Amino acid sequence: MWIKFVGYWYAEPMSTGPSPSIVLGEGLTVWLTGLPSAGKTTLAAALEKRLLAEGHRVEVLDGDVMRTRLTKGLGFSPEDRDENIRRIGFVAHLLSRNGVIAVVPVISPYRSVREEIRELHDGRFFEVHVATPVEVCSERDVKGLYARQRAGELSGLTGVDDPYEPPVSPEMVLHTETSTLDESVEALWQALHS
Amino acid sequence: MWIKFVGYWYAEPMSTGPSPSIVLGEGLTVWLTGLPSAGKTTLAAALEKRLLAEGHRVEVLDGDVMRTRLTKGLGFSPEDRDENIRRIGFVAHLLSRNGVIAVVPVISPYRSVREEIRELHDGRFFEVHVATPVEVCSERDVKGLYARQRAGELSGLTGVDDPYEPPVSPEMVLHTETSTLDESVEALWQALHS
Repeated sequence: MWIKFVGYWYAEPMSTGPSPSIVLGEGLTVWLTGLPSAGKTTLAAALEKRLLAEGHRVEVLDGDVMRTRLTKGLGFSPEDRDENIRRIGFVAHLLSRNGVIAVVPVISPYRSVREEIRELHDGRFFEVHVATPVEVCSERDVKGLYARQRAGELSGLTGVDDPYEPPVSPEMVLHTETSTLDESVEALWQALHS
Repeated sequence: MWIKFVGYWYAEPMSTGPSPSIVLGEGLTVWLTGLPSAGKTTLAAALEKRLLAEGHRVEVLDGDVMRTRLTKGLGFSPEDRDENIRRIGFVAHLLSRNGVIAVVPVISPYRSVREEIRELHDGRFFEVHVATPVEVCSERDVKGLYARQRAGELSGLTGVDDPYEPPVSPEMVLHTETSTLDESVEALWQALHS
């Protein structure tokens, strides 16, 4: 068995943040965390489209783009991952406090740095756990990372041989393995407008 | 004589960009380039205050703050300086295209990377050369850098033993050695509203 499942089951959490309806128009960071191929980027793009159509200012801070523009030279050690996420969180904060909805689809495996970014945001933070199980992610394998890990060409893959710490109290949990993309985006959109 | 003056004189340039009045309310990057102690940060703070009072969204991306939040680990080699400026320019671009006035007081000694950032901005770029002569800067010496350079504790100081390439066609040139702070800010504010 090549998959070591490092996630764990947890109860569906209650929202602990402020009602996002208060701040959506005034800027908010929507943070999508989850395993590789969980569907974060796809969700982000679909959400961006809907929010732009409503007239909001939206920026998607994609992890891969950020790694070339903002965090070049950083690797995938725990320290480098944290610094990567910290910088993206800093930029999301600058945007969200200026009326922009920053949508951030990044693995962001470690809980402590996500909590650090939540605190920086002072309420303007909506954390979504894209909780697709690793078995489903490894079948989708959008970037071929799971295959490369199996072939021994890559190590340190989050959720397989590197830890993923799921959020304890995210504002939302999405199960993309049992919902269509449209359903997931609709649920997310509703939650942001409720 | 300990100062090697690496700047040079130039004719007062004409504006080559679009009229900023078109885009001020829709986001703009105001890029303040010049030697250490030229007055960039002071000007940025005073401009921020006036623009905030007018109801604009404003972010000052200070070089020193950015070096801890965005570009930690980068040094002062030409490559590192360029990467530092490139990242700040990228963030300013994200802000300015979302309706924010990004005010960026950074030495940014090299012309080519400033031009790269100008192109990225696609018109939303207002470059201000804070053209305080090095003799005046070294007397002000807000951070004690010139003294440390003279004492041999520091090398690679822009304008002294490291090059500064003044803009060829900035939107504005400010001479803080012959104007008060209020006069300089007023001139800058007027130019942004003309």
